[in-house]
Formats: sequence, structure tokens, C-alpha cells
Amino acid sequence: MLKGHQSWVFENKPVILGTATVVGPFEGRGPLAKDFSIIHGDSMLEEKSWEKAEKVLIEEAAKLAIENAGLTKEQVQFYIGGDLMNQIISSSFAARTLSIPFLGVFGACSTSMESLALAAMIVNSKSAHYALAGTCSHNASVEKQFRYPTEYGSQKPPTAQYTVTGAGAAIVSDKGEGPVVTSATIGRVIDMGITDPFNMGAAMAPAAVDTMEAHFRDLNIQPGHYDLIVTGDLSKVGYEIACELLKKHKIPMQQTEYKDCGMMIYDYDTQMVQSGASGCGCSAVVTYGHLINRMRKGEIKRMLVVATGALLSPLSFQQGETIPCIAHAVSIEAGRDM
Amino acid sequence: MLKGHQSWVFENKPVILGTATVVGPFEGRGPLAKDFSIIHGDSMLEEKSWEKAEKVLIEEAAKLAIENAGLTKEQVQFYIGGDLMNQIISSSFAARTLSIPFLGVFGACSTSMESLALAAMIVNSKSAHYALAGTCSHNASVEKQFRYPTEYGSQKPPTAQYTVTGAGAAIVSDKGEGPVVTSATIGRVIDMGITDPFNMGAAMAPAAVDTMEAHFRDLNIQPGHYDLIVTGDLSKVGYEIACELLKKHKIPMQQTEYKDCGMMIYDYDTQMVQSGASGCGCSAVVTYGHLINRMRKGEIKRMLVVATGALLSPLSFQQGETIPCIAHAVSIEAGRDM
Repeated sequence: MLKGHQSWVFENKPVILGTATVVGPFEGRGPLAKDFSIIHGDSMLEEKSWEKAEKVLIEEAAKLAIENAGLTKEQVQFYIGGDLMNQIISSSFAARTLSIPFLGVFGACSTSMESLALAAMIVNSKSAHYALAGTCSHNASVEKQFRYPTEYGSQKPPTAQYTVTGAGAAIVSDKGEGPVVTSATIGRVIDMGITDPFNMGAAMAPAAVDTMEAHFRDLNIQPGHYDLIVTGDLSKVGYEIACELLKKHKIPMQQTEYKDCGMMIYDYDTQMVQSGASGCGCSAVVTYGHLINRMRKGEIKRMLVVATGALLSPLSFQQGETIPCIAHAVSIEAGRDM
Repeated sequence: MLKGHQSWVFENKPVILGTATVVGPFEGRGPLAKDFSIIHGDSMLEEKSWEKAEKVLIEEAAKLAIENAGLTKEQVQFYIGGDLMNQIISSSFAARTLSIPFLGVFGACSTSMESLALAAMIVNSKSAHYALAGTCSHNASVEKQFRYPTEYGSQKPPTAQYTVTGAGAAIVSDKGEGPVVTSATIGRVIDMGITDPFNMGAAMAPAAVDTMEAHFRDLNIQPGHYDLIVTGDLSKVGYEIACELLKKHKIPMQQTEYKDCGMMIYDYDTQMVQSGASGCGCSAVVTYGHLINRMRKGEIKRMLVVATGALLSPLSFQQGETIPCIAHAVSIEAGRDM
């Protein structure tokens, strides 16, 4: 039900019954490798194009999440998903394979939490027994579409981010055991006038802070309510800006641990990722892999995931538009059995 | 709440409190002209690009729908919208202007009913008092992105469809007077192997029929339950295929009137539109303009709108993929006061 202006509280506590994460070889060399379900040795996944490979990532993650939940795809009522590709083709084509009624969504890299928020809302309101939420990105397909082909070897400034090759999926259920989704805050579009697509972190930070503020206000809580707060993929540059903004807005973040998914998945010392990671797959694989695993182990009791998205297109950038950004927050808590 | 496998029944009867439609000059010369809120004389809308013009269409429709509902934008909790542009920039940029918490969705031309279904389900489950659903398309921006620039003057086969320049928006509310949204059926992705982007109607017809069948099965009703059933934008070619498939599947469509939005908005005798109309704006402006007006006048008591979408991208087509399609159905009934 609605709480405050833009948040939902899920009083029926929808359960994350199963999750799965599928990544590429580069992510498999990072510090979170042990948390991923499948690590591919070849980023082409034996497909003929990067785009086809990206589709396979989400297909595999979706199928494995369904299996991990102990379900068959026929038992799942709705698949809520999207990605960064034009016309979200990775998700639409995966929906064709899965044959589950499909709600396509788009929030750029915030799609991970947009889809989880909607899945939880649909299950909470008894509009589904089981809903699948998932998203994906592929470094090469995204770089090609938004920037330059990787073969071109263009130099990147230190503010640039490296798109994650990976897919994460979760089954949200009205029964069973597992972490529960307790609330969600849907973000407004915030645009601070930044035009540099090689500095997404700076563009997205104000949106993350706006959604966090709205979340604390709507739910009448403070950051200390959570053991951990993570933003989606602000990476180093955006994370620092977010920290400054949070201080300026007098949000007592010192009460809790605050991290960013974009700074967790790669090893800055050995992997050349400039400011850090980005892409729909970033917050999805960190949350559904590493963070949910930590929750299952009892290391985290309550967390807030604030996935951030830059809603530009190459065309809007070429037409001189600034970069509108958004962030959606979802809170996840250890279930009764955990 | 969930009904059957893939449908929702809205027991709290969310009300369509206000609607608005904004179209271009070509649509203003068609047979539904008197049903549109604003008809622009220039398809550029005094903007510098077609894409910027498309954004203005949905901004105007959204603002007018809010005004027609007797609200201010601050009272609206969520804006659910999407469009055909890469990364749904028209909707994202409109969400920036409106500053309403935004859920971006994508279902190609089925976006009109995907957004209405979600808005109704959010309001029905007490997750919002007021939600805005809307979508748009612009003939020139869509042609340029998916096919060829209009200036190129490429010939089109008789199966091609003409993208509507228009935007439609609706405010869904938990109180007030107006037509009510009673149910929705979320479609599966159906792909019959068609590869020709100049024959979308044929590709989409099986998806429309699959969703209609699911709707009747889930709700345990027959077509005669409705005074009118309309598909989104199958146009002449797709409509004929849908009629054949419905007959083959023994769905007694003779019980009701069955029309297609793609065949209603233009005059085949005087407007060169080949098979008919298409685009996100097509079913949106026909439904929120003409059909809702007929309902307000008492001419229709119950209708089912089955919006259809072709989920291809130029890149998926270039890579030899077939065209996956989807359809979402929403039923609308005259409210108690009507």
C-alpha cells in the first residue's frame, strides 16, 4: 500500500524465493566471483553476436532463478524485465523463450529495482503467486550502442564506467522461505544539467539522493534502520558526490554502512574499469548474488538497494540534451526463518 | 487480484478521472478529429527536431489529462509511460518536466494498455490515489528510427502501416466519477516467424488472439460480455488474419462488435496509409479520445481494448531475428454515474 507520496510498504511480505546470477569472464575475475551462479569463460557465449549473447545471459539467469525457487516456468504468472538495448530486445526475446506473460520495463540501470519493486507490488496485492524480475547488460553490446565499438579502442576518461556483462533474476512469491521485500520507493526524474555520457556517476548521484530522501521521509525512518545501504552504479566519482550531497542534506548516513555496487564487482588494482562498474546487470548481479548471499548467511538483516539509471539515448545526447536520471529503492529484510 | 493465470480483476473499480489526446495535422484530417483535445497544425510543434516534438505531444497530453481530472501534478503519485523511441526518451524527458515519480515501461504499441493496466493495478491495490498512464508516437521520429527518413521518400508495400503522430494520457483514480477499469490481461510474447517489418499487422495478429483467448478463459466470459472489442493497430492486413484465427479458435466474435484502432483514425479514401495506422499513439488516442467519448455519451457500456506491439528493433531485424509480438488487454466499463 501507498506510504507517503511515492513509496509502497509491502504488508504481506513477498518472499524472494530464488535468485540467479550469470556473468562473463571479466566479472568472474573480480572479488565477487564466488557469489555468481554461472561464470562464462567466453563473453560471446558461443553466440553469433553480442546482442544474442546478452539475451542468453538473462535467459539463463531467469531459468536458473525459477529452478532455484523450486518452480517450473508454467507456475510463474508474470515476468517483469528490461535492459539497455534499444526496444529492450534482450528481455523481449527472453520473454519469447520463457513464454511467461511479460511486462517490459525501462529505467536504464535502475531497471533492476524497478522490476523488483513492481514484482513485489504485484505479489503483495495478490495479483500473482509468483513473479519473475530480472535484468541484464553486456559490455560489448552496450558500448557499441551507446558509445564506440570495443574494437575501436577509444580512450576513456577516468570518470567513465565499465558496463557489466551479467544478468540477475529473482522469483518473488506470496509464500515460502527467504528474504522478504518490505518496501519500495519510486524515483522522480532528476536532471542537474550534466551532458557528458562518460560521467554518468555524477549525473546519477543527485537522483540517488533524491530517492533516498523520499524513502526516509515517506517511511519516517532514518538510515540507521538499515545495516547496509547500497546505490546501484554511481562508482567512485558518483559515490563521492552522493556522500557530499547526503551530508549537505543532513541525512545521517554515519548511522549505517553505505556502499555502491559499481565499486564492488571489480578489483580496481588489477582491472581497468576507470571509475567503476555500470549497466543494468551491475546492481542486479551484486544484489541477487553477493548481497542476498550475505543476507542468507545472516551477515545482513536489513538493506536498502537504490538502483540508479541514466535515461539518455545516443540521440538525445547528440541533440544537445542533458542527462535525466532516476533511482528506485527497494528494501529487503532477512525472512523469519533466516 | 489475480484471476486465472495472467489476468487481474480490479474489484475496487479504479476510475478514469480524466483523459487527453494530442495529435498532429494528418490525424486532424481523419474521421476522429472531433474526438481529440488538441490538433497541432504543424507536426514539428515549433520544436527543433521530431524527437523533441514527440516529447511535447506527451507532455501536453499528460498536463491536460491532469487538468481534466481536476488535479495538479503534485497530487499524482506515479506516472507510468513509455514510447517507441530508443530508451523511451520521449516519456523519460516528459517525466523530467512533470516531476512525478516515474515507472518507465516498454511494450512497443501495446504500451498504451500496459501502462493503463499497471496504473489500474497500482490504484486498485491502494498503492496510489492517482496514477497517470500515457504514451506517444511521432510519424517522422519513428519512421527515421525504424525504417527510413521520410525525406528519402521510399516506397512502401500495401502491408505497411502509417505511424500515428499523437499522444494519449489518462488519470486513474481511487475515487470520483467516470469510466472504470475492471480487468486486464497481460500477454505472452508470441512469434510466428514473420521477419518483414513492413508487415507488422500479420506479425501481431496471433499475439492479439492469444491474449483475447487468455482473457476470455481467465475471466470465464465470452466476447458477448462486451459491446465492443478493439485491437490496437493490426490494420487491414492484421485484422483479417485476426478474424480468421478467432474463427479457427472457435471464439464467437459474432456476439460483439470487433474493430481495430489502426483502421479507425484515418480515411482510407483520402489518406495514403496503406494497411492503416500504427504506433504507440494509435490505440492511445483512439481509446482515450474517441472510445472514451462514446462511453461518456452512453453509446458503449463495456469494451475491451487489446493493444498490440511488435517488439523488434532495427538491430534484431538486421541480425535476422523474427518479430516477437505481444498484446495486453484492458476492459473499461461505464461508471455508475454514466
